[in-house]
Amino acid sequence: LDQLRVVLVAPRNPLNIGAAARAMSNFGFKHLRLVNPYHVAFREARSAVGAAELLASAEEFTATADAVADCALVVGTTSIGHRELQHPIRRLEYGARLMRRASGPVALLFGSEKYGLSNEDLSHCHWLIRIATESSMNLGQAVAICLYELSRDPRAARRAPEPVKPAQAGDVERFTEMLLDTLRRCGYVNPRTSRSTEEKVRRLVRRLNLPARDIEVWFGILRQMLWKLDGVL
Amino acid sequence: LDQLRVVLVAPRNPLNIGAAARAMSNFGFKHLRLVNPYHVAFREARSAVGAAELLASAEEFTATADAVADCALVVGTTSIGHRELQHPIRRLEYGARLMRRASGPVALLFGSEKYGLSNEDLSHCHWLIRIATESSMNLGQAVAICLYELSRDPRAARRAPEPVKPAQAGDVERFTEMLLDTLRRCGYVNPRTSRSTEEKVRRLVRRLNLPARDIEVWFGILRQMLWKLDGVL
Repeated sequence: LDQLRVVLVAPRNPLNIGAAARAMSNFGFKHLRLVNPYHVAFREARSAVGAAELLASAEEFTATADAVADCALVVGTTSIGHRELQHPIRRLEYGARLMRRASGPVALLFGSEKYGLSNEDLSHCHWLIRIATESSMNLGQAVAICLYELSRDPRAARRAPEPVKPAQAGDVERFTEMLLDTLRRCGYVNPRTSRSTEEKVRRLVRRLNLPARDIEVWFGILRQMLWKLDGVL
Repeated sequence: LDQLRVVLVAPRNPLNIGAAARAMSNFGFKHLRLVNPYHVAFREARSAVGAAELLASAEEFTATADAVADCALVVGTTSIGHRELQHPIRRLEYGARLMRRASGPVALLFGSEKYGLSNEDLSHCHWLIRIATESSMNLGQAVAICLYELSRDPRAARRAPEPVKPAQAGDVERFTEMLLDTLRRCGYVNPRTSRSTEEKVRRLVRRLNLPARDIEVWFGILRQMLWKLDGVL
């Protein structure tokens, strides 16, 4: 986290700078650098919710070369096919993995909202990443997605679903009996076909997959219904 | 892609609605739903770059129940620990996997910028996801990150690095010889220690890992330097 330098080159909209700062703060990144921001007053961006300190400590540069000078790896960002590129372009999923492995500070460069990174900016990059989208993204959102991917936990994705502890068969049968009692009192069960109705309801209840943790609540609900129906009769 | 309904409940800032629409358009999602948006004129949000059509076709509802009625799975979003939650909370990485597997339309709910989803909204959800951050995110950025994770290609992350074809040993040695020729003409090589200097330079060049595709350019550079140095002498 402490190795990454987010470098915004010639950003035009202070709201985007603030949004980038907020996303950095969300994910715990600290070092924001700006090359020739268009608005001088960017540090007051109201969109930097919870990131005022980070924005205050952002470093300003007048040349991309200076903003990346202390980095071991310089990675540019690009939207798809907006020019002929001389660099290897990697999908974010893969590029982020390589960035995490870098041994030294890593600069991640974002170009201006309107034009992206210039060819001169790009020539300072070792390689480029792109987010696989159909159209060009908002700057603040692009920064957020890159930082998310860098913070992403692949093990979290591979987790097995938590098993829901099912109610025991005895409890499920008790639930079925109470439901059938209720249905009988409501006149839902036709005495002539009661055997087949009972079996139908039994299967119906098994398909509910009643969780063990909920069974007592269901007993309470059915008890209350039975008590009320007894009053009615 | 066509199964997802992005549902913004009581969003306050039209810029965020537009940003959500833009992110949806970026990743190819189509169905935006709004429950009681605070601003009536949200459809004119300038932040919906390239997503005007999507925003125009957004559906409006006055109740969360109606906005999710046709969905097989309803997933809420929450920031960490902002209240005691009765739902299973899953990390986005894992929740997105479950959402992709759903058999039927999936609603993904986002609450208002200020308060998040209400307890009533949450009670319509099967479970919740959270983005693992240290503080609460901007709405437009949170939407973008969720859609990114849903569109993410896990195979792209597992890719092996592209092998860079290294220059052949013969070419590397030719490069070394040309460099040594240059260094001799510049007076860098002390004749008394020339043997050890040669070996040092040979090792130095091997550590460069010269790529095969660049070797001819390097020959050209060194040829030009040698030609110029011959003129000087």
